[in-house]
Amino acid sequence: MNERADKKAARATADQVAREANVSRVAVSRAFNPNASLKPEKRDRILQVARELNYTPDMAARSLVTGRSHLVGMIVPDVCSPWESQEIDALTTALQAEGFATLLFKAKADFSMDPRLLTYMRGFNPDSVIAFTENILPDVLCGFLDRAVPIYVIYDDVKQFAGAASGTLYDRLLVRQKNGIEQAVALLQGYGARRMAYLGGKAQSLANAERERTLKETLAERGMDAPIVLAGDYTYDTAYQATLDLFRIGEGADAIFAANDVGAFGAIDALRHELGLSVPEDVKVVGFDDIPQAHWKSYNLTTVRIDLEERVRALVRLILMRLRAPDAEPFTETLNTRLIVRGTVG
Amino acid sequence: MNERADKKAARATADQVAREANVSRVAVSRAFNPNASLKPEKRDRILQVARELNYTPDMAARSLVTGRSHLVGMIVPDVCSPWESQEIDALTTALQAEGFATLLFKAKADFSMDPRLLTYMRGFNPDSVIAFTENILPDVLCGFLDRAVPIYVIYDDVKQFAGAASGTLYDRLLVRQKNGIEQAVALLQGYGARRMAYLGGKAQSLANAERERTLKETLAERGMDAPIVLAGDYTYDTAYQATLDLFRIGEGADAIFAANDVGAFGAIDALRHELGLSVPEDVKVVGFDDIPQAHWKSYNLTTVRIDLEERVRALVRLILMRLRAPDAEPFTETLNTRLIVRGTVG
Repeated sequence: MNERADKKAARATADQVAREANVSRVAVSRAFNPNASLKPEKRDRILQVARELNYTPDMAARSLVTGRSHLVGMIVPDVCSPWESQEIDALTTALQAEGFATLLFKAKADFSMDPRLLTYMRGFNPDSVIAFTENILPDVLCGFLDRAVPIYVIYDDVKQFAGAASGTLYDRLLVRQKNGIEQAVALLQGYGARRMAYLGGKAQSLANAERERTLKETLAERGMDAPIVLAGDYTYDTAYQATLDLFRIGEGADAIFAANDVGAFGAIDALRHELGLSVPEDVKVVGFDDIPQAHWKSYNLTTVRIDLEERVRALVRLILMRLRAPDAEPFTETLNTRLIVRGTVG
Repeated sequence: MNERADKKAARATADQVAREANVSRVAVSRAFNPNASLKPEKRDRILQVARELNYTPDMAARSLVTGRSHLVGMIVPDVCSPWESQEIDALTTALQAEGFATLLFKAKADFSMDPRLLTYMRGFNPDSVIAFTENILPDVLCGFLDRAVPIYVIYDDVKQFAGAASGTLYDRLLVRQKNGIEQAVALLQGYGARRMAYLGGKAQSLANAERERTLKETLAERGMDAPIVLAGDYTYDTAYQATLDLFRIGEGADAIFAANDVGAFGAIDALRHELGLSVPEDVKVVGFDDIPQAHWKSYNLTTVRIDLEERVRALVRLILMRLRAPDAEPFTETLNTRLIVRGTVG
C-alpha cells in the first residue's frame, strides 16, 4: 500500500497550507471550522490545497491549546426508541451546524450510570453534556465532569433534586406538560369518557412520574375520578399485555392515557386485535410524544406533542450560552406542550 | 462557584494517582480502559483515588502519543429511521464494550457527502469509520481519511465500485440478500401470487438497486412475470401514495414486495384503510429489515431479516481486525438473510 505509506510520511503544517494558498494562518483555521464565515471560493481553495498537501487540523492537538474539544457528549439509554432517535438525529444535525461533533454513549436501560463510563467520557473533554438519563443526581454527574455543565430536562414546577448540593451547577430545560395534558382530558371529557386508565412508563422515569402526577391533578380539578394506574415501561409489548389485563382481569376503562405513543400503539392493538373493542367508539386512547409513527393510518393517534424543533433549538441555545458564560447562574429554557388531534378520541 | 475553581486548579497526574493508590502507572492506565482486565477491587480503588485527586486521563493528550483516538466515526443520513437507529444503538453498545466511543455525523439525505464534513471528521482522528451512506466511492472517502479504513456494506455478488482505484483500501460487509428474497418469493408463489409489484426504496440507494435486481432475477428463475416497479424512497408516506396509484391508476397487483418494512406499513395501510382491500386475502405484502415494529399486531409483517446481532458482531470484528493489521488485504465478513413469516402473506 505505497500510497498510504507516502501519505503518512508527507503531512503538511497549517503554515505550509497558508503559504501555498496565499492566505493567512487564521484563514486556514477558519476554513476547517464549518461554522466560521469565509468566502466559499476562498474556503474551497484552502481545502483543496490542504488536501493536496495532506494537511488536517488535529482536533486533539488544538483542544490542548484552546481547551475546547468541539465535542458534545450525549448519554442515552436507548438509541432506537422512536422518541430518542428523533431527538439524537435533530440535535446532531443542529450541533454539527454549530461546529460540534456528537459523542454518543449508551447508559444502562434502568437509567443508572456506570461510574467508569462517566470517567471514560470525561477523558474526551466534552464541551457540553446532555444526559437523556433521569436518575443521576447533578452532584453525582458533576463530580465526573470537568468543565461541562450538564443539562437536565425538568417537568412543570416540581422542585427537582431536593437536597442537591448547592454548589452543583446545571442548566434546565423546563417542559410544561400541563397544557397538553389538560387539552387531552378536556377532549376526552367532551367525548364522554368517565373511567380513565393511565398506562405508565418506566417506574424510574421522572418524565413518567410527572406525567402521572399532572394527569391526576387535572382529573381532580375537573371533578373526575382518579385514574386506574397500569404499570408499563414505555414498550409496546408491556402496554399490550397491561391492556389485556385491564379488561380481562380488571374492570376495564373507557379511556386510556398512555405515557408515550409506543405504549398507546400497544394498547390500541390489544383493544382491536384481541379484545374485539373499537377505538375510539368503545375505548378512547391518547398518547404522548407525537412520534412520526403516530400519523400512520393504522394508529392515527391523538397525542400530546412537545415540539421537537423548539426543543432542539432550546438545547443548542443552552449549550452555547453556557460555553459563552461558564460561571453564570443556571440557565432555563421553557417548552410548552399541546394536543395533536387525530382519530383515537373522537 | 468556588468548588469548580478549586477543581480546575488541583488536577493530579497519573503518577500521583499511582503513588497514592499504591499501584503501578500501567495499572492506572488500565483502570481507565473499560476493556482492559483488572481486578474489580483494584480498579475501584484506583478510580476512587483518581476522583479524590481530580485526575482524568486526557484522551486528547494520549492520542497524540499513541496515535489512537479510541473513536469510531459513524456517518449516517438519518438517525431516526427505525432500521438505522437500531444499528447505531447496537453498534454503540458493542463498541463501548471494546473501549471505543462513537462519534456521530449526519450526512445529507441524498447520500452525497459534504467534503467539509469529511475533513472535519478527519480532524478528530477516528480509529475507524463506518459509513451508512452508499454513494461515496472508496477512493473519494479514503482521500479524506488518514488512518481509518472505511467499511462498506456490499450486496450479493455484484462487482462493486467498478473502476475504483486499486490503491484504495476498504473492508467489506457482504450481505447475501438472495436467500431471504427467494424464500419470500417461494412463499408468495405457494399462496398463489401471480402479479407482483416491487415498491422501491431511494433511487440512489445501492441496497435498493440490489434488492430490485435480486427480486427480478428470482422471479425470472421461477418463471414468473417481471414485477411492476413503483418508485419509493423508504418512507411510509410515499409508499402509501404509490400503493393508491398502483390500484387506482395502474392495474393493481396481488402481491407487493416493499424495499423496507416502513414502506410495507404504508402499503398495508393504503390497502386496508383507503382501498378497502384485505391483507393477505386480497393482496399479500412482504417487507425487508424486520424492524421491531414489524411484530406490532396492526402490521404483523412477513419480512426478510438480516440478523442485527450478527451484523453488529461482524462490523466490530472488521474494525478490530483492521486495527490489528492496518496494512492487510481487504477483509470481508458475510451475512445471510432469511424470511420471518408472520401474517401478511398467508
